[in-house]
Amino acid sequence: MSILIKNASFVLTEGKTILKCQDVYVEDDRITEIGKNLKQDAEFLVDGKNKLVMSGLVNSHTHVAMSLFRGLADDLAVMEWLKNHIWPTEQKLRAEEVYKGAILGCLEMIKSGTTCFGDMYLFGGAVAKAVKDIGMRALVSSVVIDTLPEVAGLGLVQKTLEEVKRLKCDRVYSWLGPHSVYSCSKETLQKIKEMSRLEKIRSNIHLSESLSEIEEIKTKYGKTPVKLLEEYEFLDSSVTANHCVHLTEDDIRVLKKYDVKVVHCPVSNMKLASGISPVPNLLNEEICVALGTDGAASNNCLDMLQEMKFAALLHKVSNLNPTILPAETVLNLATINGAKALGLENEIGSIETGKKADIIILNLKKPHLRPILSDHSIVSHLVYSATGNDVETVIVDGKMIMENRKLLTVDEEEIMEKAQKSAEDLQNRSKPL
Amino acid sequence: MSILIKNASFVLTEGKTILKCQDVYVEDDRITEIGKNLKQDAEFLVDGKNKLVMSGLVNSHTHVAMSLFRGLADDLAVMEWLKNHIWPTEQKLRAEEVYKGAILGCLEMIKSGTTCFGDMYLFGGAVAKAVKDIGMRALVSSVVIDTLPEVAGLGLVQKTLEEVKRLKCDRVYSWLGPHSVYSCSKETLQKIKEMSRLEKIRSNIHLSESLSEIEEIKTKYGKTPVKLLEEYEFLDSSVTANHCVHLTEDDIRVLKKYDVKVVHCPVSNMKLASGISPVPNLLNEEICVALGTDGAASNNCLDMLQEMKFAALLHKVSNLNPTILPAETVLNLATINGAKALGLENEIGSIETGKKADIIILNLKKPHLRPILSDHSIVSHLVYSATGNDVETVIVDGKMIMENRKLLTVDEEEIMEKAQKSAEDLQNRSKPL
Repeated sequence: MSILIKNASFVLTEGKTILKCQDVYVEDDRITEIGKNLKQDAEFLVDGKNKLVMSGLVNSHTHVAMSLFRGLADDLAVMEWLKNHIWPTEQKLRAEEVYKGAILGCLEMIKSGTTCFGDMYLFGGAVAKAVKDIGMRALVSSVVIDTLPEVAGLGLVQKTLEEVKRLKCDRVYSWLGPHSVYSCSKETLQKIKEMSRLEKIRSNIHLSESLSEIEEIKTKYGKTPVKLLEEYEFLDSSVTANHCVHLTEDDIRVLKKYDVKVVHCPVSNMKLASGISPVPNLLNEEICVALGTDGAASNNCLDMLQEMKFAALLHKVSNLNPTILPAETVLNLATINGAKALGLENEIGSIETGKKADIIILNLKKPHLRPILSDHSIVSHLVYSATGNDVETVIVDGKMIMENRKLLTVDEEEIMEKAQKSAEDLQNRSKPL
Repeated sequence: MSILIKNASFVLTEGKTILKCQDVYVEDDRITEIGKNLKQDAEFLVDGKNKLVMSGLVNSHTHVAMSLFRGLADDLAVMEWLKNHIWPTEQKLRAEEVYKGAILGCLEMIKSGTTCFGDMYLFGGAVAKAVKDIGMRALVSSVVIDTLPEVAGLGLVQKTLEEVKRLKCDRVYSWLGPHSVYSCSKETLQKIKEMSRLEKIRSNIHLSESLSEIEEIKTKYGKTPVKLLEEYEFLDSSVTANHCVHLTEDDIRVLKKYDVKVVHCPVSNMKLASGISPVPNLLNEEICVALGTDGAASNNCLDMLQEMKFAALLHKVSNLNPTILPAETVLNLATINGAKALGLENEIGSIETGKKADIIILNLKKPHLRPILSDHSIVSHLVYSATGNDVETVIVDGKMIMENRKLLTVDEEEIMEKAQKSAEDLQNRSKPL
């Protein structure tokens, strides 16, 4: 496939440089040229007038199939939410329902400008199939929780790795997903580490998300979750740690020492009242921080443009400092840093000749995106005013997958209807007798 | 005009009761019937399938014309932002530019489901004209700042009151807008109070927004801004106080005693790093709290659906309590409490037979608004997942002003182009020599 974007009003390139009135040419899966007056023939011609061309957003931590649980339960204490609502429902989940929830979540992400995501969930193979079918890019994992051997046992990890290999889709990658230090034993974590080395793949884990986690681990082991993972020799540059809300100064030194990538999930941390991650300190230490929506049950949407605004604003108010996390920084969290957190920074995360063509095009002719007075306006509007709906066109791996807000790869209505049906069935099955 | 909404999947009525599969009939400016199988003839017939019919949102505090300054300057310390960017630009403003900024902001608000707002700005008459032309409902005021007699003097208030009267538009109301206790003297505030009594209109004022305001007033007068207004005999039930971020327990008692209405602006307070208003405490004291976006320079959008999510989440995380400000409560802040803050609760703020027909209709057939499993899902999706773009139809005062996202009252492209031009002119005029 070839795509030519003509006369784009703005192209946000590597390092957040903004080029004006440029063409972008995509051949096969790559961006092959950026410049003025390109003349190549192309199957798809996109008029870039009043448009912003930029890298697809990277949602570095989600449980995409949890879209099925959107609005199932809100405004509850975390343990009531988990024990009485989420876990009873999850234990009834079937692979085909995970597929339907995952593809609903993928659809939502594409429609809000996310082209790549990192996932951790039950039935990782079903998530992988949804990603392949809809045309996105993702790292998928089967979550490991020691107390749920039937749906989240270590034995299922190998099965998922094989399912992903059988898909033979170079947009779908495996990584490993031990749930957390409080739900995985030392032995489990060390086996996962071994698997990570053997398969040469990354791992992702929830880390220091809530005060109750910190207390539990401190009581049991006399140290923080971060220090415990260090003791287990689990930490290295192939680890992505989700949340990292409650960190000591020593924890931060450890994360930096091992080049662990951190995924900040401000909306989920706010909605579940987990706390506020010390993101400005992590960035000061030059730790790579990416951004994630977490699952739809604790957000309740998967819109990375919205997530950026929450990230920027949460840290300004909690530090009583409006200069913290400026828009340009936050945009990096959602693009190139996301690519780094998923180990894909050489392939995606910026608009550059030679990189994979994961591109989104936003329509700037909207009242909430006017006026445009400077290059800063573009970045400011993206972080502080745009929403997912401003994304008009989505290209992944050089393929046009959304054109003028219409998906070309799947039937949107069918996805919504099937997800609705699955959620209803699941809710009926999960009701206490 | 008459409008019949047929078979609405969901109608969110007074007290947040959700009716299913109902018709809503609007005749002239009022909702005249809600029920099944209504047979009235109507000029506009709206298919309500997969739609949610609800009260238009009320944005209780904004400076709508500041849409011209969107993205002009962000991520700056407040005093640098005001002194080097906002104030130099505002001092060059002309009435026709305020009109162009105001109508851009009104357009944005309509497109995100706001039907009524409370405004405070320079050239209130120009704002009033924009509101009339586009078909919204609003309370407008000419801001009073003692040190800016030429553009914000007390003498201009009477002029604006007369301009509003001359419009003869029953959707456009006057209220008074003394800027704050630090920018208005005792004499000014007392004259405004007198005018409020004489004209029988409400007042709105910025109150206890930032720590620097608290410090300045404490140093000068030895008391808090709230206590100072009490001493001036300014406080009563006709006063709406914007922000109220920094309050003592005694301040809260005073606000309750005089039945002052409070407008919470979470996004602006976060972006400017002003602090976190004790909204849960105010609600516990049964003080009426409404919601506002503030101006686009400190937000940077005017989307009340987004503002609701910020309100809900900010207080959960800052109190480390996920049960605080549940979705149902936040929805009241943006509807009926907004109506109360503007003195219009008998006319707007809920879907009820006999009330003014200020109605919005959202399309629920969106991936981020699925599944729908219960009445709670509807409210949850509104607060936690919907964005302004999900609003498809807007009715104000019984008139259809947006149908399928297209404005029927104005030329949207022309508004955007003229605002762009005005913002550019203004920026060129405001540059230091």
